[in-house]
Amino acid sequence: MTQVALVGVGMHPFGRFEGASLKDLAREAILKAIADADIGVKDIQAVYSANAMAGLLQGQEQIRGQSVLREVGIERVPVINVENACASGSTALREGAMAIRAGSADVVLAVGFEKMFVDDRDRSLAALESAADLDIVSGLGLQFTAIYAMRLRRRLDAGTLTERHLIDVTIKSHANAALNPYAQHRTPVTAEQIRASRKIAEPLTLLMCSSICDGAAAVVLARRGKVRPAGRPDIIVRASAAGSGFTPLTPDETQTATICAQRAYAEAGLGPEDVNVAEVHDAMAPGELLYYEQLGFCGPDQAGDLLDSGATRLDGRIPVNPSGGLSSRGHPIGATGLAQVAELVTQLRGEAGARQAGQPLIALAQNSGGWIDGEPAACNVHILERTRRWP
Amino acid sequence: MTQVALVGVGMHPFGRFEGASLKDLAREAILKAIADADIGVKDIQAVYSANAMAGLLQGQEQIRGQSVLREVGIERVPVINVENACASGSTALREGAMAIRAGSADVVLAVGFEKMFVDDRDRSLAALESAADLDIVSGLGLQFTAIYAMRLRRRLDAGTLTERHLIDVTIKSHANAALNPYAQHRTPVTAEQIRASRKIAEPLTLLMCSSICDGAAAVVLARRGKVRPAGRPDIIVRASAAGSGFTPLTPDETQTATICAQRAYAEAGLGPEDVNVAEVHDAMAPGELLYYEQLGFCGPDQAGDLLDSGATRLDGRIPVNPSGGLSSRGHPIGATGLAQVAELVTQLRGEAGARQAGQPLIALAQNSGGWIDGEPAACNVHILERTRRWP
Repeated sequence: MTQVALVGVGMHPFGRFEGASLKDLAREAILKAIADADIGVKDIQAVYSANAMAGLLQGQEQIRGQSVLREVGIERVPVINVENACASGSTALREGAMAIRAGSADVVLAVGFEKMFVDDRDRSLAALESAADLDIVSGLGLQFTAIYAMRLRRRLDAGTLTERHLIDVTIKSHANAALNPYAQHRTPVTAEQIRASRKIAEPLTLLMCSSICDGAAAVVLARRGKVRPAGRPDIIVRASAAGSGFTPLTPDETQTATICAQRAYAEAGLGPEDVNVAEVHDAMAPGELLYYEQLGFCGPDQAGDLLDSGATRLDGRIPVNPSGGLSSRGHPIGATGLAQVAELVTQLRGEAGARQAGQPLIALAQNSGGWIDGEPAACNVHILERTRRWP
Repeated sequence: MTQVALVGVGMHPFGRFEGASLKDLAREAILKAIADADIGVKDIQAVYSANAMAGLLQGQEQIRGQSVLREVGIERVPVINVENACASGSTALREGAMAIRAGSADVVLAVGFEKMFVDDRDRSLAALESAADLDIVSGLGLQFTAIYAMRLRRRLDAGTLTERHLIDVTIKSHANAALNPYAQHRTPVTAEQIRASRKIAEPLTLLMCSSICDGAAAVVLARRGKVRPAGRPDIIVRASAAGSGFTPLTPDETQTATICAQRAYAEAGLGPEDVNVAEVHDAMAPGELLYYEQLGFCGPDQAGDLLDSGATRLDGRIPVNPSGGLSSRGHPIGATGLAQVAELVTQLRGEAGARQAGQPLIALAQNSGGWIDGEPAACNVHILERTRRWP
């Protein structure tokens, strides 16, 4: 089967950028990714564009990708606009890889962008609600944060996680983000600050949660061997698994990420023990703990032990969220999935500087989006491989 | 290469359905397509969902496909939401075919749905503007209708089309739609009625233009041989070509459809002379004439002659828009591209009843969407083939 390589990555920093339009954010990420791949804009043969909320926030629906590409100078090629709530970015990556595997294009750009800071903060928050089925949300009043909070509260009650675990993983996220020049929240935090910060939904406090954010991320994909920046190791997509879950709301943990991870491991012929570094979808920092178990990094109810062992720190056996994750690096919805991949490519190349997580060969990205009946509406798990041994 | 077959089609009638939600529209089309393929909902392995304006019109962005699938009973599988303005439906088809060719799924559902009738008609019209780059549209004030009108006015001034051609093609569209139980406008019209109807943008009158519409269409795609409804001929995708165009506004005809058609013919190893039936993107009925030339059905400036020859009528050499086209069958944005394909599959099977267009073996669908700088922001051309001779 055709192998797909990730040959260029680019980011617009995540944060608040009042003077920058959606187009400004996207353009910077795109041009950086293309330059990083050492190709020109005319080499791009297809574009997969991810955005989640520009319809509601900027009024630009329908042709979001084209509207930003126009200023980049990419034209004539197929442009496919995708969305899948917080999993939009990884959906663009997956579809781009599919186009290459289907023989439809050799060099593809995947780009994700979001501008959540608008004139009216309430409008941003209301737009977020469209990540769930409006007919259900408007009946239940459940929001993302509340769902995370309920699942964590249940673990605290069962004694399989403690408040200290929630705080420690949040400290870790902020510490990693502090080393990441693209991150939104770059100030390390203490347990005391986390505890003292505003309660959002018990047991979550403000410093545990991702916040409104602007940003963009882009990745250039190519048929392996077609584009090979000088001196760079090949980084290929070993697996690209997707799923959705509509199981009725239950007190059990969600299953969608677990199922998608199993699909990805099967496709790659690998297991969780092979993963050297991971970016997971911690819209709330303590959510990372739940994903340890769902992705198989540890057994059921062992997330606290895994965290305590130090294995998921930058210098551990399996560093998780070296970028700082959604909660600290930032979570501009449509860009997040590609930011995860940009981070992992940087890690696999050994170019992550102060936050370099050892010498990884296998990396995993898990990106979830939306909710229906308490399960993510979309989930994508990608497994990436650096094929050349480290020197 | 893996061949992709179209094994099931389903439509919700196009028109105004006040009591039906977006979910009601989509569900009916989906269940019909699945029943038509003689499979069950659990056989669907991936879903590509197309919608253009639910963010602005219903407030449901981000997970539009999931929100309608929930009621159908399809879950767990990858769901990819795509949009490309009026070309959203064919984008879903193209991505679905890509997933099969990439080996990612064997049976895929592509569905498009739109509910344009909302409480406030001005809101529907305003949402349509997001099919163009808002930064440009808000500067120029150009709308779809005006762009079509300018291009046609130029042809009338040059004498390469006459007002009678514009009227005759509109009469043809309505006559075909009158035979189509799924069509929005099912009353035949006369030249006098067309001339007397309200001027929209000179030379276009109301009866020439597509109108606000609700509807849904769905297609089941499968790896060829995987699903084969009893007694049905195989209908395969011979070509799936896409493009976008950002060329600066010029007085020349647009080039994007031409380029995409050339790509499709090259991929299929066929030429326009091989096409036996076509559905083209006549958002305004006289636009059909321009597409005759862009798709190569006739030479430059010969559209009027082709129409006059009767070749594009139901009983002609190359019937165009047997469904009635966007202008008469209806144009619920996200559904249109899949309605074209549903019509062509029906024609290739010989199941179109009173509007059956002979015994076609090769069919072409052209679906364009949005505008940037006077060119369609997206265009997809599909060529379909009935592989079994007619009895």
